Amino acid sequence: MPLQTRLTNTLGIDHPIILAPMDLVASGKLAAAVSHAGGLGLLGCGYGNAKWLEQEFAAAGNAEVGCGFITWSLAKKPDLLDLALQHQPAAVMLSFGDPNPFAPKIKKTGAKLICQVQSLTQARTAAAAGADILVAQGTEAGGHGVTRTTLTLVPEIVDAFPDLPVVASGGIADGRGLAAVLMLGADGVLMGTRFYASQEAQGHPEAKQRIIQASGDDTLRSIVFDISRRSIWPQPYTGRVIRNAHAERWYGHEAELLVCQEEQAQRYAEARERGDFDVAAVIAGEAVGLIHDAPPVAEIVDRITRQAEALLARGAQLIGG
Amino acid sequence: MPLQTRLTNTLGIDHPIILAPMDLVASGKLAAAVSHAGGLGLLGCGYGNAKWLEQEFAAAGNAEVGCGFITWSLAKKPDLLDLALQHQPAAVMLSFGDPNPFAPKIKKTGAKLICQVQSLTQARTAAAAGADILVAQGTEAGGHGVTRTTLTLVPEIVDAFPDLPVVASGGIADGRGLAAVLMLGADGVLMGTRFYASQEAQGHPEAKQRIIQASGDDTLRSIVFDISRRSIWPQPYTGRVIRNAHAERWYGHEAELLVCQEEQAQRYAEARERGDFDVAAVIAGEAVGLIHDAPPVAEIVDRITRQAEALLARGAQLIGG
Ligand SMILES: Cc1cc2nc3c(=O)[nH]c(=O)nc-3n(C[C@H](O)[C@H](O)[C@H](O)COP(=O)(O)O)c2cc1C
Ligand SMILES: Cc1cc2nc3c(=O)[nH]c(=O)nc-3n(C[C@H](O)[C@H](O)[C@H](O)COP(=O)(O)O)c2cc1C
Repeated sequence: MPLQTRLTNTLGIDHPIILAPMDLVASGKLAAAVSHAGGLGLLGCGYGNAKWLEQEFAAAGNAEVGCGFITWSLAKKPDLLDLALQHQPAAVMLSFGDPNPFAPKIKKTGAKLICQVQSLTQARTAAAAGADILVAQGTEAGGHGVTRTTLTLVPEIVDAFPDLPVVASGGIADGRGLAAVLMLGADGVLMGTRFYASQEAQGHPEAKQRIIQASGDDTLRSIVFDISRRSIWPQPYTGRVIRNAHAERWYGHEAELLVCQEEQAQRYAEARERGDFDVAAVIAGEAVGLIHDAPPVAEIVDRITRQAEALLARGAQLIGG
Repeated sequence: MPLQTRLTNTLGIDHPIILAPMDLVASGKLAAAVSHAGGLGLLGCGYGNAKWLEQEFAAAGNAEVGCGFITWSLAKKPDLLDLALQHQPAAVMLSFGDPNPFAPKIKKTGAKLICQVQSLTQARTAAAAGADILVAQGTEAGGHGVTRTTLTLVPEIVDAFPDLPVVASGGIADGRGLAAVLMLGADGVLMGTRFYASQEAQGHPEAKQRIIQASGDDTLRSIVFDISRRSIWPQPYTGRVIRNAHAERWYGHEAELLVCQEEQAQRYAEARERGDFDVAAVIAGEAVGLIHDAPPVAEIVDRITRQAEALLARGAQLIGG
């Protein structure tokens, strides 16, 4: 019997699971696989590229998918939103920045507006902008984020916005995580790292292998890889990646890295090209420690929902043992 | 019907709730109140002071309490452990450092050895040292800690040590948090910030008031207050406090603060003395955003356990709604 929440109702999906719009990794193939499995797939429009967008919407075929933008980056290329909206996405997610400039246009098309926020303050802005769904992202998340954790951010946002579906993001990779955040009052989960390590994700096999092998102790938040790939983010965002030789060398020495940025960026770009992950970063969250394989998406969704359902059913037995 | 877990069985307590041994705040009165309410109270032996220890064991009266040490600090004053063991504590908790030098002595007395760890690596050391209970502390915690979050650290440690009771610590202040970490596989919770805002806690009324008023967005991890009170910790520990004017002034300017440490430490000590919390830090975690009052301990324990039990009982209803 499937888990029903305000999220499944609002989006008309079977399982309360959303694919994070991971830049490049969340391809049409991956997004379609998540939607076909009963969740909602979001294309990772990331830093934005019209050609990629067209191609991946096409690759998603007839699956009902949405897409996600990095808001501060979209502000530099606002036309990408129009392009995306022409594909009638089920939902558009905006993360990392003020959604106000884009919210009215998105909502007018009937697409659901999902806002991923990193603090209670940002949740207030997103709710005021008309968000249909709030995603509370904790610092355990892979990729960019801030410092608040999922465990406290979710219930605080749930209390502040009792009428909005709230989705937990950051650190969730199995049915235990899904069941846990439902207890916190969330209506579902958004997962990145777990879906990165799937058959369908667009990613280097070696990157997926590193996710499988890493413990949660092996990730770190920093600006080292942003400097190295010449993509400096506005404060206070930092990016979580799996530690490697490059990160160990430069973490805590960011000013020094900036001094030789040109040379290092060159080296970094080359390493990315040839799949050298001792230099290039694997973007992933603390949940790597809970991931031990890269199965098909359908299997991931099936496992997570079954495990969560079993835990919820068993919860009552903990009482009065 | 009370929640039964391996923790309640191991410790012989009614509720799977432990009081964090908060330096100075976790007094004999507070620890006794938590034990009387059906949890386990731990005296906050912190940086260690023989007189305080004697006085607070006496204040705890006939309640069965334990005590907790900062391991790297205890290493400098190992006699304090002998003193504590003379009081036949139910348990001794060691945090922040290698438990090996103290573990055999503690275990020989029959007291349970509780180790609070901040990573999977540290959990391995603690388990090898003979820990009876592992406390997985996430970065959301008030006071000192590291970077891993409760949401991923707990299940990772549960998977690695299936035969040990695992307690979640950091970010838990209500029944939602307790129910959530039980779903993650934990056997109970250890709470600091929530019990700080109680009638029985030894703390300035203004400090409790700031906990009640703060949102989770208002705390930050740094080494500013350690520098300011002349108590530099070994790396990688940092302390989480509620932001105030002093923290805003010096956060990101730690090197500069070190330059004028003498002068600032003087100012800080005076502020602490007169209860000026624009300078002196209120040590507290992200869970402040979930705390809205400072009731008696018995009421806190009652609310949390009832809420968790109700959520667990209702969990099954989420399935197939
Ligand atoms: C490889 C990768 C790339 C990401 N890229 C983006 C992005 O382009 N836009 C965005 O909003 N979030 C991005 N994120 C963050 C996700 O939206 C989400 O917050 C995160 O994956 C959730 O935490 P988890 O990785 O523990 O599941 C990315 C995450 C990963 C792992
Ligand atoms: C005021 C305060 C003082 C603390 N002092 C200590 C201490 O002396 N020794 C210790 O092991 N932990 C100490 N901690 C950390 C707690 O053991 C525990 O990890 C933390 O309180 C759990 O997170 P929470 O505050 O969100 O409940 C302290 C925490 C607070 C809030």
